[in-house]
Amino acid sequence: MSEWRADPVTGQWTIVADDLPLARRDFVLDGVSRPLDSPCPLCEGRELTAGHEITAVRHGSAPDGPGWSLRVVPNRVPALRVEAGTSGAHDGLFVHRPGLGAHEVVIETPRHDISWFSMTAEELGRILAAWRDRMADLRRDGRLRSAIAFKNHGVEAGARLAHAHSQIVATPVVPPAITHEVEAARRHHTAAGTCLFCDLVAQELAAGVRVVRQTPACVALAPYASRTPFETWLLPVRHGARFDEASADDIASLAALLRQVLEQVGRELERPAFNAVLHTAPFDEPGDGAYHWHLELVPRVLRASGLDVGAGLAINPVSPEKAARVLRGGG
Amino acid sequence: MSEWRADPVTGQWTIVADDLPLARRDFVLDGVSRPLDSPCPLCEGRELTAGHEITAVRHGSAPDGPGWSLRVVPNRVPALRVEAGTSGAHDGLFVHRPGLGAHEVVIETPRHDISWFSMTAEELGRILAAWRDRMADLRRDGRLRSAIAFKNHGVEAGARLAHAHSQIVATPVVPPAITHEVEAARRHHTAAGTCLFCDLVAQELAAGVRVVRQTPACVALAPYASRTPFETWLLPVRHGARFDEASADDIASLAALLRQVLEQVGRELERPAFNAVLHTAPFDEPGDGAYHWHLELVPRVLRASGLDVGAGLAINPVSPEKAARVLRGGG
Repeated sequence: MSEWRADPVTGQWTIVADDLPLARRDFVLDGVSRPLDSPCPLCEGRELTAGHEITAVRHGSAPDGPGWSLRVVPNRVPALRVEAGTSGAHDGLFVHRPGLGAHEVVIETPRHDISWFSMTAEELGRILAAWRDRMADLRRDGRLRSAIAFKNHGVEAGARLAHAHSQIVATPVVPPAITHEVEAARRHHTAAGTCLFCDLVAQELAAGVRVVRQTPACVALAPYASRTPFETWLLPVRHGARFDEASADDIASLAALLRQVLEQVGRELERPAFNAVLHTAPFDEPGDGAYHWHLELVPRVLRASGLDVGAGLAINPVSPEKAARVLRGGG
Repeated sequence: MSEWRADPVTGQWTIVADDLPLARRDFVLDGVSRPLDSPCPLCEGRELTAGHEITAVRHGSAPDGPGWSLRVVPNRVPALRVEAGTSGAHDGLFVHRPGLGAHEVVIETPRHDISWFSMTAEELGRILAAWRDRMADLRRDGRLRSAIAFKNHGVEAGARLAHAHSQIVATPVVPPAITHEVEAARRHHTAAGTCLFCDLVAQELAAGVRVVRQTPACVALAPYASRTPFETWLLPVRHGARFDEASADDIASLAALLRQVLEQVGRELERPAFNAVLHTAPFDEPGDGAYHWHLELVPRVLRASGLDVGAGLAINPVSPEKAARVLRGGG
């Protein structure tokens, strides 16, 4: 029988319907499509096509030339620009403001044909450290209020370039998903005096059934009211509101855990398209108990239907308990 | 240059970035995939496979046999059941309740291979009238608070059966999208004394730039802060909170408008996958100025990226003004 479940963080109700007779063909499991981009603008040797680097991991080579492990450049086709103004305007019921924001691309490796599924924990850690460092820098811009780092793997997940890359977007408004989480965390903190996410991690570690994997500092969970099959959250066990203040140990532990989770996701779901999205506290949020950074991993194995797209109501045909069991390697 | 736009109904900010150099290959325009289902469980002659009819459009034939234009049956694989209980329970931070709700299937035509793109206004009107009648009936169940009628066209939009059908889901919770709209409409009604949607329609009819089409009683608009390219809302011009109280004239006018919009969408976007979702006031909402029913049409021509999936922030590369121009037939 199906069940309504409320997410303690977002407050959203989801229908977990584990008894639907779904077949393999109901899932998107044909591997991912790679975008066509020839010649690739992000490969080693084409540094000026990719853009002047904001930062890079280099071992003695000169900026904007070959000889790097990772580069961060401004998006060549930015949806937002740091040069834009801040003054909004009204037009009757409508409110608009210039497209202010930062839109950066993290070129994750000089090699064209390597994906997160093939990277080592060290390589993944280098990417996560670049996300952290860029978020810390962008936070200094007083016009911006929030940053999101995200990865689109595969055309099905919104990727437009084949070369492994991720994006960082910093915005003058706080994205709705972060707002909902902060509000829930604040309510919980006011009522209970503790961090909602810390309490959630403690409850899940005690119950065990939705725990996917664990490393010394981090844990991977299938969220109780997951909106999509095999959604997995990676969180630090110890409290930390801001990812831009994560320690080298935190990053290494997160990378090791991500490596393990990707191994299982790749094996069980045939290296599917996915999104990975880093949630951190808004820039002006005090670093106290009212937030807790985490990485949300969303395999894109099911097409959203009209009920989700048009009403915000998801039917998840794989219970989080089953998803965690599969991703633990227990079938 | 891109622009931030706030939706007056949902309050969400969207990045409208009309200057992105997108190519045709960046859109999903390869026609739709049809699910495989052989033999089709919904075709004429297989009435008992499809299910006992809740209601049907028949001209003298007996229930559950051939000779019909439209049938409504319970979903054979329901995500929700009217037989479920109502008592919820807590488990620490988690709240759950039984999968109570109605989940019905509208079999829109006895013919297997006809889609909304090929239907007449009369055929579309028959479907919309069935949605209205079922919503009116489901509203009598005091345990339910809201109903959504929706259509998934194409595998890419979540369809699992090839035969033209739509679904009605009635729930004991109000879906988030409806809640946000009701809250915004209530705030506006309290402040201005008028219906937010009526004022929106008036402003858009005066401006003209986002008007797609019009019939005597209804208008099709490209919403000011559309989250996806070519999203179109069809609304009655005269105030009406509940679709289950729509008149025969309203339905005929909506169907005629839908026919025209589908004609243009089919021509300009090569008959894409789409969702159509009918929003009506929650069952216990007074039928006053604080809501206004409408049909949201969402062509699935762009893949959602991690920024949208994980943070709720959409980048729309086709401005609503351009979308309206294209769908008016003006290129």
